[in-house]
Amino acid sequence: MPLPPGDLLAELLGTRGRLIVASNRGPLAFEADPDAPAGLTAGRGSGGLVTALAGLGRLAPVTWVAAALSAGDRLAARVMTEHDGALGALDGAGDRAVADRVAALVAESLPGQDLRLAYQVLPEEVYRGYYHAVANPFLWFLQHQMYALPYGPNVDAALLDAWRTGYRPANAAFARAVVRAAEGVERPIVLLQDYHLYLAAPEIRARRPDATILHFTHIPWPAESQWQVLPQGLRRAICESLLACDIVGLQTDRYAGHFLDTVASFVHDARVDRDGRTIRWRDRRIRVRSYPIAVDPDRLQVFSRSPAVEDRHARLAARLERVGRPALIVRADRIEPSKNALRGFLAYEELLRRRPELRSATRFVAVHAPTRMELPDYVAYARAVREVVHRINGMVDPDKQPIWLYDGSDYAMVIAALRAADVVLVNPVVDGMNLVAKEAVLVGERDPALILSETAGAAEQLAADALPVAPADVIGTADQLERGLAMERAERRARLRRMRAAVRDQDLAWWLNRQLRDLAAVRRGELPPSRRLRNTLREVEAVTE
Amino acid sequence: MPLPPGDLLAELLGTRGRLIVASNRGPLAFEADPDAPAGLTAGRGSGGLVTALAGLGRLAPVTWVAAALSAGDRLAARVMTEHDGALGALDGAGDRAVADRVAALVAESLPGQDLRLAYQVLPEEVYRGYYHAVANPFLWFLQHQMYALPYGPNVDAALLDAWRTGYRPANAAFARAVVRAAEGVERPIVLLQDYHLYLAAPEIRARRPDATILHFTHIPWPAESQWQVLPQGLRRAICESLLACDIVGLQTDRYAGHFLDTVASFVHDARVDRDGRTIRWRDRRIRVRSYPIAVDPDRLQVFSRSPAVEDRHARLAARLERVGRPALIVRADRIEPSKNALRGFLAYEELLRRRPELRSATRFVAVHAPTRMELPDYVAYARAVREVVHRINGMVDPDKQPIWLYDGSDYAMVIAALRAADVVLVNPVVDGMNLVAKEAVLVGERDPALILSETAGAAEQLAADALPVAPADVIGTADQLERGLAMERAERRARLRRMRAAVRDQDLAWWLNRQLRDLAAVRRGELPPSRRLRNTLREVEAVTE
Repeated sequence: MPLPPGDLLAELLGTRGRLIVASNRGPLAFEADPDAPAGLTAGRGSGGLVTALAGLGRLAPVTWVAAALSAGDRLAARVMTEHDGALGALDGAGDRAVADRVAALVAESLPGQDLRLAYQVLPEEVYRGYYHAVANPFLWFLQHQMYALPYGPNVDAALLDAWRTGYRPANAAFARAVVRAAEGVERPIVLLQDYHLYLAAPEIRARRPDATILHFTHIPWPAESQWQVLPQGLRRAICESLLACDIVGLQTDRYAGHFLDTVASFVHDARVDRDGRTIRWRDRRIRVRSYPIAVDPDRLQVFSRSPAVEDRHARLAARLERVGRPALIVRADRIEPSKNALRGFLAYEELLRRRPELRSATRFVAVHAPTRMELPDYVAYARAVREVVHRINGMVDPDKQPIWLYDGSDYAMVIAALRAADVVLVNPVVDGMNLVAKEAVLVGERDPALILSETAGAAEQLAADALPVAPADVIGTADQLERGLAMERAERRARLRRMRAAVRDQDLAWWLNRQLRDLAAVRRGELPPSRRLRNTLREVEAVTE
Repeated sequence: MPLPPGDLLAELLGTRGRLIVASNRGPLAFEADPDAPAGLTAGRGSGGLVTALAGLGRLAPVTWVAAALSAGDRLAARVMTEHDGALGALDGAGDRAVADRVAALVAESLPGQDLRLAYQVLPEEVYRGYYHAVANPFLWFLQHQMYALPYGPNVDAALLDAWRTGYRPANAAFARAVVRAAEGVERPIVLLQDYHLYLAAPEIRARRPDATILHFTHIPWPAESQWQVLPQGLRRAICESLLACDIVGLQTDRYAGHFLDTVASFVHDARVDRDGRTIRWRDRRIRVRSYPIAVDPDRLQVFSRSPAVEDRHARLAARLERVGRPALIVRADRIEPSKNALRGFLAYEELLRRRPELRSATRFVAVHAPTRMELPDYVAYARAVREVVHRINGMVDPDKQPIWLYDGSDYAMVIAALRAADVVLVNPVVDGMNLVAKEAVLVGERDPALILSETAGAAEQLAADALPVAPADVIGTADQLERGLAMERAERRARLRRMRAAVRDQDLAWWLNRQLRDLAAVRRGELPPSRRLRNTLREVEAVTE
């Protein structure tokens, strides 16, 4: 990941400045371990957000505010310092040992970074309301259009209570932590992450009017009609809190448009300039911009050749050879209703009905990670997926079954399968971005065809060379599977080359630099230079019949 | 219903012209009855569309094209004439007797109308695909946001087959019937009704380029992101077929905006002027306008004093007196998931929890019509509603139970309950217009407070004086029930007076005249004069906190 231009960072941060990042999950997950030095060990935090931001400290000095999620995190949090000098307040030798251990673990797990962690311990009942009632599932379901609106959401006493005693106080705690982290920093730059932190900006703005604040939403921002079913109090609190930022960042131009419409509908005293992507509200000007999140191509390249991946790739290759190396369709995702595995398998079933010879001439590898199994909706969805897979596979020898399931919590297996794919199926109902599509483009070794939902954020960049599908379209998905399997290698290669160039070009450094450049412009009182992206989906609309 | 200005009709229709209306359901439902003259009897067709249009023939000469839905309809259809002279082709004395009987039944059931019926017999398998697979449930579910998108819709082989062999041919049959009805009519005026007939306009346009065509959608037009999950082929066929009209009419400005956005997204060669509500497409100009459908106040007034209503009103009043005349909350709708009875009862349950004394001091009368019980989703929803009602009512004496259920297929009972209401609850998840809200405003005798979903079309006209609720907001709905019950009579009266004026002013004649005036303007090459409506919802956004 190339560094951002030094003068840009110098302009933004000065000599003593730090970027202040806040997100629910931090870059390291600490674990209490009585056998480890100071009783602590650590691994990389999981999830796309952490993966995207984990290299940030190599580019600039960063203080990262996050929630302490485990006993290990809470142990580490006690000794974390948000600003120079706080270490002096540590309580004796025990804390000192823990502090040294935390520093060592950071240096070891995220080498070469100027990174300070400021994990926040939230009371258990606050965290429960904030995370387990409001953020997941309520906001996640709403923003991924996962509710059957006649039944959900129910804005009942339990949800409002979780909002008041969980989501609001958690956001206030994050805001205070950011303010502490910004002590001694002139004109701090604050990067708030995702739907967990919609309400944090106003308190930061109030206490640090000199701050420049950008909030970035990693998940979709749905049409304002999705928000319209919610009480005014909730939808306005979310919109108005985001308007305390200087820049509101979304994954795509489409979501940026939805956000502008949502504010226009529900914040009556806001003046929305949809074309200029600017909102005037209470004497301030807020910019709305798109920053499509990306992968780190070099890092992925190295990982895709790691022993762990090579091992899984060799085993998958051997298994495929045993059955005559059939053509390989791959999907890799969590078993999350928004990812649409169900219709993906129904489409494959339709294809096998149409072309029975493909039952032996293809395999469908699904690298599936279970997720959120505490939610009944997820359990029911996983069961529905399992039933369709059983129906398609029948009772034959596992190698002869057309669908092979692998454990997707093993990231090396994900990359190994994507390396071996002839066709990759990414058909979410709706998805903020979908990084699997971008990973598939980078690591595929057999010039795979990419079948991509028009409703994935990635479609704005990739649809022109992918094979687009509408997510509800089982037959169209079967058609594209058939087309992808039949496509000449030369055409697949040409398409892949263009997609690969786009993904390499608009990488993680580009994603971050676009934000930093806009922040610098805002601070100079100028227009943020980031323009609308080329929308490849629009071309597809024009071409396909 | 006052007549439209004669010069407007004369301009539109000339001396020999007729309005040509096409809708799935016609104004009369014929029944085969061996004991009746010519084996036929007839009743008024059901549904809001037919109610709205049934008086049309008093205003202008009308030919009405509809589908033959029953054996009686099919019997009548054989002898129906779409243009003068066809009667001569009747097959002998039997047909002549049926033709005379149909004419007599029309004259008797819809007196004072110059109305010709042209019912179309569709092959059973065509009707099944058109009506039972595509229109209901697919389009109805999609446009009312009733799908949980991870599970539905599934655009599978069965749906595509129904589209190709049902919906398309049915629309083609309607188009041909309209063309036949327009034979001998110069510059015919064609009024296409609702989501059953999205595809009819192109063939009419091709065969009668001199026609002026208006399509009116009675149900909601959802945000374009709802349409985005569908295959390009489907969503473009719908949009482009509607663009063969001169005017596309929707219930509200909000839906008109959604339609403009949908076309902008999915018809790449259309130029959409959102503010001017105009679309340029293939050298034609299409106007998009809102025509909020209405009730006929005079007719409703007469009906509300009819013996049938008086009888039910007296019985309800007596039952209420027996338990000390508690305050009365009323809802009246089909048990249709989009009508949101479930959350309505949950809100009442919340209110009774909060204010236990209201268990005896109020009654909640739900006048509920079962509907579409052939669809599993409807059966499941009705069961969920029943369970909540049982839970709230408990096992006491029926009169002491807080919720009283009545059969909503008895329209006289609906009006009787609305007359007696102190509070009327209309809280649909989403609704094209909702005429119950307007009926309640006209017939209420105790100055009822109207609680109204912001997502009902009627909210654009009534929200400023109704008590608005967001449909997912169980707590907010409980709050408004409490507020409505506690509101001073004087305030209720003042609000009701303003709402009543709006409903009386924008009545069914106004609804039709707005369309005729716009059609006349389009034919003169002018801008349709109908303007955006005053959006009372916008005021509520500004005021409520």
